[in-house]
Amino acid sequence: MIDIINDEYFMDLAISMASKAMGQTGINPVVGCVITNEGSIVGMGAHLRRGEGHAEVQAIHMAGQRAFGGVAYVTLEPCSHYGKTPPCAELLIHSGIKKVVVATLDPNPLVAGSGIRLLEQAGIDVVVGVLEEKARKLNEKFNYYITTRRPFVTLKSAATLDGKLATKSGSSQWISGPTARAEVHTLRHQHEAIMIGVNTLLKDNPSLTTRLDVAAKQPIPIIVDAQLRTPVHSKVVEQSGARVIIVTTEAASEEKAEQLRQHGVMIVRCGSGKQVDLHQAMQWLGEHEISSILLEGGGKLNGAMLEAGLIQKMILYYGMKIVGGSSSPALFEMGGVELMQDAYELESVEVELVGEDIRIIGYPKRQDD
Amino acid sequence: MIDIINDEYFMDLAISMASKAMGQTGINPVVGCVITNEGSIVGMGAHLRRGEGHAEVQAIHMAGQRAFGGVAYVTLEPCSHYGKTPPCAELLIHSGIKKVVVATLDPNPLVAGSGIRLLEQAGIDVVVGVLEEKARKLNEKFNYYITTRRPFVTLKSAATLDGKLATKSGSSQWISGPTARAEVHTLRHQHEAIMIGVNTLLKDNPSLTTRLDVAAKQPIPIIVDAQLRTPVHSKVVEQSGARVIIVTTEAASEEKAEQLRQHGVMIVRCGSGKQVDLHQAMQWLGEHEISSILLEGGGKLNGAMLEAGLIQKMILYYGMKIVGGSSSPALFEMGGVELMQDAYELESVEVELVGEDIRIIGYPKRQDD
Repeated sequence: MIDIINDEYFMDLAISMASKAMGQTGINPVVGCVITNEGSIVGMGAHLRRGEGHAEVQAIHMAGQRAFGGVAYVTLEPCSHYGKTPPCAELLIHSGIKKVVVATLDPNPLVAGSGIRLLEQAGIDVVVGVLEEKARKLNEKFNYYITTRRPFVTLKSAATLDGKLATKSGSSQWISGPTARAEVHTLRHQHEAIMIGVNTLLKDNPSLTTRLDVAAKQPIPIIVDAQLRTPVHSKVVEQSGARVIIVTTEAASEEKAEQLRQHGVMIVRCGSGKQVDLHQAMQWLGEHEISSILLEGGGKLNGAMLEAGLIQKMILYYGMKIVGGSSSPALFEMGGVELMQDAYELESVEVELVGEDIRIIGYPKRQDD
Repeated sequence: MIDIINDEYFMDLAISMASKAMGQTGINPVVGCVITNEGSIVGMGAHLRRGEGHAEVQAIHMAGQRAFGGVAYVTLEPCSHYGKTPPCAELLIHSGIKKVVVATLDPNPLVAGSGIRLLEQAGIDVVVGVLEEKARKLNEKFNYYITTRRPFVTLKSAATLDGKLATKSGSSQWISGPTARAEVHTLRHQHEAIMIGVNTLLKDNPSLTTRLDVAAKQPIPIIVDAQLRTPVHSKVVEQSGARVIIVTTEAASEEKAEQLRQHGVMIVRCGSGKQVDLHQAMQWLGEHEISSILLEGGGKLNGAMLEAGLIQKMILYYGMKIVGGSSSPALFEMGGVELMQDAYELESVEVELVGEDIRIIGYPKRQDD
């Protein structure tokens, strides 16, 4: 295949650079920038880490004098405000760039368009919307977080064709094959935190780490544990104590809380009922800069999160297996709806074969309530 | 796209003709035949109905004198025996055809290759295996039946992402969209019979007919009903009484059997236990020339058929919905396996989006037992 050189050609590279940095920018968006001059690439950059240079800064730095008269391709509207760094729009103006091509506007409605205006006022030619959908999807977690200040929750699960997480005896190795399992570890790398329920912890004693052929980012373990049943000697506390967050209730034992704190665990009390108030938990986590969570719950936590309307995306792997058993652990354990028309629905669905398994990606539709 | 003219080019047409006749040849295979002479198509034919002419007969008839020196493309090895019609291999020889291209050998191991030998002994050039896989799949039901004398059973179901056939209140309209539902009616046309359990009959009172925009074949309704609870005034008995087969047990009331017989229903007793002996039922149905069955059971019949190893193919539609509820009717209601490694597995899986639903097609792996 021969690619045709046009705006999409260069923007596609900027998007690739941004996408590979997914997971390493914390609550910041991923952004890529390419600068060309007379058809040749003269600068490239991506935002790599919160607090460090923006994509445009790096690309302009690489281009040096050759930015003058050039074209900049940026996946996200250049910023117009003084934050940890000076505004990128201003930097682009001073560099002598003559045209800026932007994929998506800033998702924050309060500032969207202001970077574009700055550029246009300086006489720079601006084009907006090149590969917009692709660029927007890249920052779906950031876009949600920046507008709601709550974490974007991706439910990931691996189930059988009859919707079970394990057999009636609890056997679950393996529902899905090695490719699907490697994808899951990549998802851990791409989320700030990973969340499970205490039942899963007690049953599997998982380490909740990212294990891949290369070094990868480790998500913050979050355990939903209403009665603080998490053992001090569980793998996750022993291995990642200083990073673990346990979300519990006002009613949970302060003595047990103190034991866990001594291992570095942070205890957060959400709600005074029997169950953790999940809305309150998401509120607290958002306020503490957890912008994205990979939910790897058992059926009970999955069901509670779905019923609470707190799941933004689902990535469901199906092994081509049937196990039966009415008591076998189910993908969603919850009261359930009365009428089919009231079912929780997914939209914008994508389906693909992954090794010998099937991966379904979808977004829960907003329930009318 | 420009197709390249070669053996596959003409065989593909023969396969298309055969495939559209699927469902109308009873226990006979579907077969297509194209005859060319100096690169032009001079004859075409398909086997359309049991007892009527074979594909080769029709194509040679259409070609007339122009068959002489021509090439015949046949999806299935020409027969070599005197049956309801004279052997097609002989007819091809007499027509003066100089070359025969065959997609698949006869599936019956006792006669496979004998048609080819006849042709070769007559000095005809024979090529075997062109578009073989595609042609074999076309007759997967026939191939199974002819070698086992038991019906090929295709399980069809529409479930939610959590493996439910309905909500806890029994609401099931609709799990899948109009495209998937139209496909199901096409599947009914393509199978000799349709099988449900009496629980589904009592709950839904279905008519079990093929309903499409054009006239279509109506499958024979088979009801698995151990205690003969099928009401005489159910839709299926009232509308299709003379074609209905009820499979029951020795223990079922003879009085009720007689009532049903008076409405034309055929009562077949399989097994003396509490449940219908499904192996015996398949044996009887095969002996009575039911070569293929579309199983549209509820969870109980699906589970019993799966456990008995009597399902040859599964076509599963998944609506992008989640309903929850531990008592909601499940895709497979059965005891279930103990270990994940003992799960019932599907192989040769295909997955596709069908409207807003997902269709998974697979073949249950033989269990080692």
